[in-house]
Amino acid sequence: MQLTRFSDYGLRLMMMAAANRDRLITIEETARVYDISRAHLMKVAQFLVKQGFLTTVRGRSGGLKLARAPEAVRIGDLVRATETDFVMVECMGGANQCRITKACRLRGIIGEALGAFLDVLDRYTLDDLMLRPEDFGIRRAA
Amino acid sequence: MQLTRFSDYGLRLMMMAAANRDRLITIEETARVYDISRAHLMKVAQFLVKQGFLTTVRGRSGGLKLARAPEAVRIGDLVRATETDFVMVECMGGANQCRITKACRLRGIIGEALGAFLDVLDRYTLDDLMLRPEDFGIRRAA
Repeated sequence: MQLTRFSDYGLRLMMMAAANRDRLITIEETARVYDISRAHLMKVAQFLVKQGFLTTVRGRSGGLKLARAPEAVRIGDLVRATETDFVMVECMGGANQCRITKACRLRGIIGEALGAFLDVLDRYTLDDLMLRPEDFGIRRAA
Repeated sequence: MQLTRFSDYGLRLMMMAAANRDRLITIEETARVYDISRAHLMKVAQFLVKQGFLTTVRGRSGGLKLARAPEAVRIGDLVRATETDFVMVECMGGANQCRITKACRLRGIIGEALGAFLDVLDRYTLDDLMLRPEDFGIRRAA
């Protein structure tokens, strides 16, 4: 069981923006800090801007920043947005062809478990994940 | 977010064995009922035998049956066994190279959410998922 890379990168990008919220961050810098694909991170960033989690500032010294205060961003909401589907088992997806679907109770039970998973994430906000720029290997200007 | 196909097939195989526990079931029959890969199902079956969930009866009219009563098989234990890892985010796996791992609280929060997910599954047993042979399109002998 795992979250998509899309969610993983989304969480990391939001944590980077939160730790450096006194300035704009860039995709280049974030990809370098985490040593991950710039192209993938760009897609995640565009999505998070569209969903109202990040704001873009255009221009030569432009970049990204949080659209809301860290304590207003619930981790559950972030994961619900980036995990575009939760097809835990085949019958939860559109391509389902499992023969016993009609009578089967598994989907309901897995759905209940998934609800409990997200309920825990809803108890935390980005503020609970707050780090310092130094934790990303970033030195602050004096 | 999704369970592995291995877990999905494991749950389905156990449900098939539970519904037909008055006789032995076979891989061939189960693969046909669900219209899924016989080879994959065979690997799952071997694993579940090894883990003490299923028992093999050898011979020409051999097959598989539940190793324990349905009410003694917790869904949480089954999923814990078949989901051989729960690397929800990179830092939960062996190949982790995320720079902020040392200071990051995400792993703990995801781990807590995962615990809540499995706690719900522990409240159900295979007996709660019990179906009739007819639900699998199987006619009972008169």
